[in-house]
Amino acid sequence: MSSYSSSARFDEARRVAIFGGTHGNEMSGVTLVNLWVKNGSEIQRKMVDTKPFITNPRAVEKCTRYVDTDLNRAFTPENLSALGEGDLPYEVQRAQEINRIFGPKGSPEAYDVIFDLHNTTSNMGCTLILESSKDYFNLQMMNYIKVTALRSYFCCVNIVLCDWFIAGLEVGPQPQGVLRSNIFEAMRVILKHALDFIELFNEGRTGVEFPTCTVEVFRVLERIDYPRDANGNIIAMVHPNLQDGDWEPLNPGDPMFLTFDGKTLHYQGSGTIYPTFINEAAYYEKQQAFVTTRRETLVASAIRKA
Amino acid sequence: MSSYSSSARFDEARRVAIFGGTHGNEMSGVTLVNLWVKNGSEIQRKMVDTKPFITNPRAVEKCTRYVDTDLNRAFTPENLSALGEGDLPYEVQRAQEINRIFGPKGSPEAYDVIFDLHNTTSNMGCTLILESSKDYFNLQMMNYIKVTALRSYFCCVNIVLCDWFIAGLEVGPQPQGVLRSNIFEAMRVILKHALDFIELFNEGRTGVEFPTCTVEVFRVLERIDYPRDANGNIIAMVHPNLQDGDWEPLNPGDPMFLTFDGKTLHYQGSGTIYPTFINEAAYYEKQQAFVTTRRETLVASAIRKA
Repeated sequence: MSSYSSSARFDEARRVAIFGGTHGNEMSGVTLVNLWVKNGSEIQRKMVDTKPFITNPRAVEKCTRYVDTDLNRAFTPENLSALGEGDLPYEVQRAQEINRIFGPKGSPEAYDVIFDLHNTTSNMGCTLILESSKDYFNLQMMNYIKVTALRSYFCCVNIVLCDWFIAGLEVGPQPQGVLRSNIFEAMRVILKHALDFIELFNEGRTGVEFPTCTVEVFRVLERIDYPRDANGNIIAMVHPNLQDGDWEPLNPGDPMFLTFDGKTLHYQGSGTIYPTFINEAAYYEKQQAFVTTRRETLVASAIRKA
Repeated sequence: MSSYSSSARFDEARRVAIFGGTHGNEMSGVTLVNLWVKNGSEIQRKMVDTKPFITNPRAVEKCTRYVDTDLNRAFTPENLSALGEGDLPYEVQRAQEINRIFGPKGSPEAYDVIFDLHNTTSNMGCTLILESSKDYFNLQMMNYIKVTALRSYFCCVNIVLCDWFIAGLEVGPQPQGVLRSNIFEAMRVILKHALDFIELFNEGRTGVEFPTCTVEVFRVLERIDYPRDANGNIIAMVHPNLQDGDWEPLNPGDPMFLTFDGKTLHYQGSGTIYPTFINEAAYYEKQQAFVTTRRETLVASAIRKA
C-alpha cells in the first residue's frame, strides 16, 4: 500500500469499517455502532465509504465479553483456515465470516482502515493501539487527532493480533455493561477526527502532504501477573498508589501490590516503567494485573496520497 | 425475637453468617469470604459463631452475576417450596439449600444475623440495606458502625427480598470482575465493626443497653428506567451531572439524562429526591437507570440483651 519518495505514498482510504461489540459488554462501541447502523450520517464523508458493524452480536445480546472464546484473539491463520463450520467455536466462525466480509487479510479487496472500538475498566483515558511503529498512516492519523482536538489523550503502541490495517481504540474507565456519557462522547469525538483525517487525506490535492511529525507513544514491554500462592490463588491486589495510575511513571521501590494481609510489595525493576491496563476486569483470566510500557518518541514520515 | 419494656430486648446473636458471591462477579465479598473460609481468625469473636459462606459457587467460578437466575431474587416462598430438584434453575436449588443450612426462614433454628456482601458499579460508597425501619437491632448496629469508624458512610433503607434477619452491604464503585483495594478495605472494616457490635451486645452485662439513637436513612421510593424509543431501545445515558452523584439531591429541573443526539432531559418531579444505584451495570436488564430515595431520620429504640 505504501511506496517511498520524499514522503511515503498511500492509496486513498476509501473503505473504512468501524467495529463495535468485539467484546459484547464494552458498551460505548456497541452503542455507537448500533446508532450508526440505524443512521450513519454522522460517520459519512464525501470520499469515504464507512461501514459500522457489530462483530460479536451473540455476545452483545448476552452483554458478555464473548460466548465461546475471545473474538479479539481469534483472527489467527489457524482459525481463519480451520474447517468444520458449525462445529467450530462461535467466535472462530465469526472471525472467518468477518475475514470474508472485510478481508481477506492482506488481500487487495480488504478494507483500507478498520477501527475496533473497545472499553476498559482501567483508567486509561483514550488510547489508540497500533501494531507497528512503521505504520505512518496511522501515526499521522493519531497525530492529527491529538493535535486537532484532544488534550487528555494518550496513545499506546501495542501488539494487535490482526495484521490488517486496523486501529484499536480503547477508552476508559468504564465498567463492563455500563455506558458512561463521558466515555461515550470521548470515543465519538476520536472517531469524528479520525474520519476527518481520512477525508482530508483522500481529498489530497496535488502537492498536499502531511509533513513529518513526532508522536509520543508507549511501547508494551511485558505483562505482570498478580502475586499468587503455590496453588495459583491470587494473594494481593493492585496497590492503591498504583490503582488508576495508568501512564504514570512507576519507579524502582514504588508500591505495586498490597497483599490481603496488608503487606506492600514494591516494584523491583531497574528503571522507570509506565504501567497501563491496570486492574482491567477482562485480564484476570489472562493472569495479567497490568502491562508495562516505556515511552518513546516516534518519527512518522511525511505521507501523501499516491 | 424482640419484646418491649423501656428498651427492646433481643436474644443474643450467637450465630452469624457472612455471605459472599451471591453475585459471582462482585469481587470484594467473594475474596473476603474465600479468605475467611481458609482462615477465620479475623471474624471470630468470643461469643459469636461466624460462618463465612460462598452462596453461588458456580457463578463465582464463571465470574458472572448468576448462572440461571438472580440468586438475590430467588428466596421467594414459591421457590423455597418448589419441587423438582435437578430440574429447577441452579439458583433456585441453591436458595433451597441455603435456606436449609441457614434457615428455615422464620424458624428458631435460623441464623441470628446474616450479612450479604455486594459490590456495585455505582458511586455509592458504603451502604447497608435493611428491610424494615423497625429493625432496631440492625439500626443500632448501623449507628454503631457509623459512629465508631466511618466518616464517608451512608445507609439506605431498602427492600430486601429475604425476610430473614439479614443485612445487605453494598460497597462501590467497583466494576464487575474487578477487586479494588479501597473497596475491599472498606467492606472489611464495616464487617469488623459489625462483628464488634454483635460481640458487645452479646457480652451485655446486666443493665447495659444501647440507648435510643437517631439514624439518617434513605428510603427507596421508585425505580427510574432509561428513556426508550417505541421499540424499547435505550435512547439516552445518565447525564454527566447526575453520573456518580449517588446520595446527592436531585431537584426539579436538574439534568437527569442525555440523549444520544445531545438533548438534556430534566427531572420533572415536584420535590427533591436522592438518587442512588445510578448507572449500576446489573440493573440495565432490570430496566433501571437509578432508584430514587428520600432522606428520613429514624429513631432506633434502645436495645438490650434479653
